Amino acid sequence: MASSLISRGLVSPCVLQTVPHFLLPGCRYVSKAAPQTQQEWEYDGPSMKTSVPGPRSQELTKQLGEIQNVGAVNFFCNYEESRGNYLVDVDGNRMLDMYTQISSIPIGYNHPALLKLMANPNHLSTLVNRPALGILPPENFPDKLTESLLSVAPSGMTRVQNMACGSCSNENAYKAMFIWYRNKERGVSGPSDEDLSSCMINQSPGCPDLSIMSFMGGFHGRTLGVLATTHSKAIHKLDIPSFDWPIAPFPRLQYPLEEFTRENQQEEERCLEETEDLIVKWRQKGKPVAGIVIEPIQAEGGDNHASANFFRSLRNIARKHGCAFHVDEVQTGGGTTGKFWAHEHWGMDDPADIVSFSKKMRGRGATCGTNMWSNIILTWTAVILTLAPPAVCVVFVSQAYRIFNTWMGDPSKTLLLGEVLNVIRTERLLEETARSGKALLNGLYDLQTRYPSILSRARGQGTFCAIDIRDDETRNKVLLKRCCCQRCPLPQVPSWEDVETSPSVSVQRWLQRSTTFRSCSTSSTTCWPRSNKS
Amino acid sequence: MASSLISRGLVSPCVLQTVPHFLLPGCRYVSKAAPQTQQEWEYDGPSMKTSVPGPRSQELTKQLGEIQNVGAVNFFCNYEESRGNYLVDVDGNRMLDMYTQISSIPIGYNHPALLKLMANPNHLSTLVNRPALGILPPENFPDKLTESLLSVAPSGMTRVQNMACGSCSNENAYKAMFIWYRNKERGVSGPSDEDLSSCMINQSPGCPDLSIMSFMGGFHGRTLGVLATTHSKAIHKLDIPSFDWPIAPFPRLQYPLEEFTRENQQEEERCLEETEDLIVKWRQKGKPVAGIVIEPIQAEGGDNHASANFFRSLRNIARKHGCAFHVDEVQTGGGTTGKFWAHEHWGMDDPADIVSFSKKMRGRGATCGTNMWSNIILTWTAVILTLAPPAVCVVFVSQAYRIFNTWMGDPSKTLLLGEVLNVIRTERLLEETARSGKALLNGLYDLQTRYPSILSRARGQGTFCAIDIRDDETRNKVLLKRCCCQRCPLPQVPSWEDVETSPSVSVQRWLQRSTTFRSCSTSSTTCWPRSNKS
Repeated sequence: MASSLISRGLVSPCVLQTVPHFLLPGCRYVSKAAPQTQQEWEYDGPSMKTSVPGPRSQELTKQLGEIQNVGAVNFFCNYEESRGNYLVDVDGNRMLDMYTQISSIPIGYNHPALLKLMANPNHLSTLVNRPALGILPPENFPDKLTESLLSVAPSGMTRVQNMACGSCSNENAYKAMFIWYRNKERGVSGPSDEDLSSCMINQSPGCPDLSIMSFMGGFHGRTLGVLATTHSKAIHKLDIPSFDWPIAPFPRLQYPLEEFTRENQQEEERCLEETEDLIVKWRQKGKPVAGIVIEPIQAEGGDNHASANFFRSLRNIARKHGCAFHVDEVQTGGGTTGKFWAHEHWGMDDPADIVSFSKKMRGRGATCGTNMWSNIILTWTAVILTLAPPAVCVVFVSQAYRIFNTWMGDPSKTLLLGEVLNVIRTERLLEETARSGKALLNGLYDLQTRYPSILSRARGQGTFCAIDIRDDETRNKVLLKRCCCQRCPLPQVPSWEDVETSPSVSVQRWLQRSTTFRSCSTSSTTCWPRSNKS
Repeated sequence: MASSLISRGLVSPCVLQTVPHFLLPGCRYVSKAAPQTQQEWEYDGPSMKTSVPGPRSQELTKQLGEIQNVGAVNFFCNYEESRGNYLVDVDGNRMLDMYTQISSIPIGYNHPALLKLMANPNHLSTLVNRPALGILPPENFPDKLTESLLSVAPSGMTRVQNMACGSCSNENAYKAMFIWYRNKERGVSGPSDEDLSSCMINQSPGCPDLSIMSFMGGFHGRTLGVLATTHSKAIHKLDIPSFDWPIAPFPRLQYPLEEFTRENQQEEERCLEETEDLIVKWRQKGKPVAGIVIEPIQAEGGDNHASANFFRSLRNIARKHGCAFHVDEVQTGGGTTGKFWAHEHWGMDDPADIVSFSKKMRGRGATCGTNMWSNIILTWTAVILTLAPPAVCVVFVSQAYRIFNTWMGDPSKTLLLGEVLNVIRTERLLEETARSGKALLNGLYDLQTRYPSILSRARGQGTFCAIDIRDDETRNKVLLKRCCCQRCPLPQVPSWEDVETSPSVSVQRWLQRSTTFRSCSTSSTTCWPRSNKS
């Protein structure tokens, strides 16, 4: 830890020498009066004081339960005391956080660079005056977008539209594809009077019977439009009216990939063929596919991967049938796969039409004991990136107020994003993620070799790694087993090996199995359990 | 201005005496090195230096146009220099802002109380560590909700769920109503296997053919679910697939109300009758109405009002037919009508089932020269408030993860909201809004008496006031006419009378007329034009 802090310029070696207890495991220099540089230390290990949720968390859960649903609350946090990869709860338990707030904390808790940024009085105005960006942007807005988001835009993407969350980004991406598709059908002529009057009462031709093609297992959000393209778990969709839109199969690959080359290729060809059949079928039934949406790795749906060739072929199918091609990088974007965008691994000849992005991101696994900030490199903003004309982005430039809402994002989040990107660059976190990811995946391969009856299907890209556990019962044992870590004096603290594997294991298995109403325990990936190998 | 600052305790009289140029019209004490108390002055009038958009705004619009749609951009702002009700643009023009960022700036620009709050280093952690509130809330979260939102909740509302924006709030309110309706149908039994499997492919019975009833002219957001209940302008809806949900007529009242008592009562009865007919009709066609959504005042749709009796009758119809009753206070909530919630004017025997809320809000009119912060009393957060059991909120407590997303709001906005509510209370802004609103409406009545061939239908509640101009051409003249204000040395600065009336006039007329693709100029309500009375 100390060496990484030194290399990041946040502390000098001599400071460490004068405060040697920094280097002791489990210790931390805590002083409210200490200068900022001395408070910026991360913890060097977990420290558990109570069971989780502890008594204070239980008390607060009861209190919050009086005013809102607490069925998903795991415990209450002390964010002031949390540092880097370590989340501290209100009972003083310190845990290595593999969950990072559903992958939305980009570079760890209380990163010194972000604290410094927010403490700058020059930014106060940005914090208290949230503008309607679409109509009255601040002076620095074009520069901020160019310096931040566009500096990491995928090749060929030249335009960006801020939104407030992942669902909003995808909803507006779909709207853009619908508008683009109808513009294409109309050619140079504008909407007819019938278009304009019928849309006011939700009827065609103004509200046309267009569709978005999605994939089984995909997750694109929870508002009604994007929910129609989400197919990961019944709990998200039950009882909510939906659209009759086509759902294609996502390849179910067999692992290790090198042993199943032929089978996997056949599986992908089957899926592509069915995709194309569905496009034709939906056109025939009067609900043409305006756009295809896909995640580079199905995250919520169970960490399902496909080959670069599969995605390139899909892009070609979209072009062939006149559908827009939308890559949803809400989960995968931001560097967790070792490239800033997961779809950059595909080597496409031409870009996607639309890329959406939000929170994010950290992968499902992490290597610990190295650079503490290494594999948590996501961002806090939501955007739609579009191809330069003449593709889908034409709808962005043709008519105002069609892709629009009150805030169109939040400059205070763009401000944070800019600094997050600086940290990613200066600390070379993309390279670190690729390196850490390789180590993590090798570790998972090794574990699965050692415990073949329990573990299988180790897979990943960058730190976006996963492994399956045999069944629900075993998964639950892994999650709930107490720790026998040799390095910590307290119960329920994991060993490093546990930390590297079990949370990933459990969350994946949960994601794949939880189609019933069992309460979601995704956040139990926070690292107090350990794998059941003793 | 000076007296209001004194009364608010933000400045002492002796400070004003020693800095007399504060009191000069158009002057302001500006010093980067000045202590905070000396920088907290508001401006005391508009000051125009260029036409709008000025050269710098035009340059920036061109720059931003390279990377995103700028069709809706009016000009670029200098938010650092903006104060209270005055918005300063990048060309140094200072305008009285009647538009408040689409009604989302709650208590003016750079309010000293908010600057102080955000400058407090204790809040840094809240700014840089955005939590997933639904699973890992911070320790102070229950208290913050109780102190802020629940302290102003409508009578009977005891539960609150944060969201990130108005559309998200309404989308989740609809989901809650759908889930509640299906739970009611199922009784004690859980979902069937068929429910669980069919919902994964968007089909009934898992994704049922339920509907939400909305009203013609209503606006509830722009994502696909809420867009199906928005019927204000074609530009929002054109080319976007929608749901076949019932749309009831909203009363078209005649003004002045006291002259058309009988006609208006008949109109409301007609609408209520049709509403009930539609509920029956949609049930018969297999798409039962799970909930009814309505705005207390149709805002985006043209400031359409209805009587308290109309809304009470509607609430009774909802109960009679087993539909949930959802009051959308995204535009009207927050005090602009003189009560914190507009529907508190109705005197209902029992509360609504769901109230949604977001940005907001400032009315469509404002009195100037009085307390500068008077009628800008909205909030920055988005929530769903629900009735205590056994009504709709049962869905909030029964199953976790059904009304859910990653962030579930943003504690940094809740922090701001708490302070906004403090300001509303300590400055007695609700009372001030009622008082100012009365003065404003009387002014509108007076104007309409003086210019009967141009102005009509003056109406309002609190400062949520509107008046109609004869036709588009006259409206445009009002909007674009140069100013002849006697008090300002520069062109294009309005007189107070202009400020009080023309922006309201223009935005209302625009809202009512703009069903075509004319570029929206809503933000031109910022106050540089003047009414055409000379």
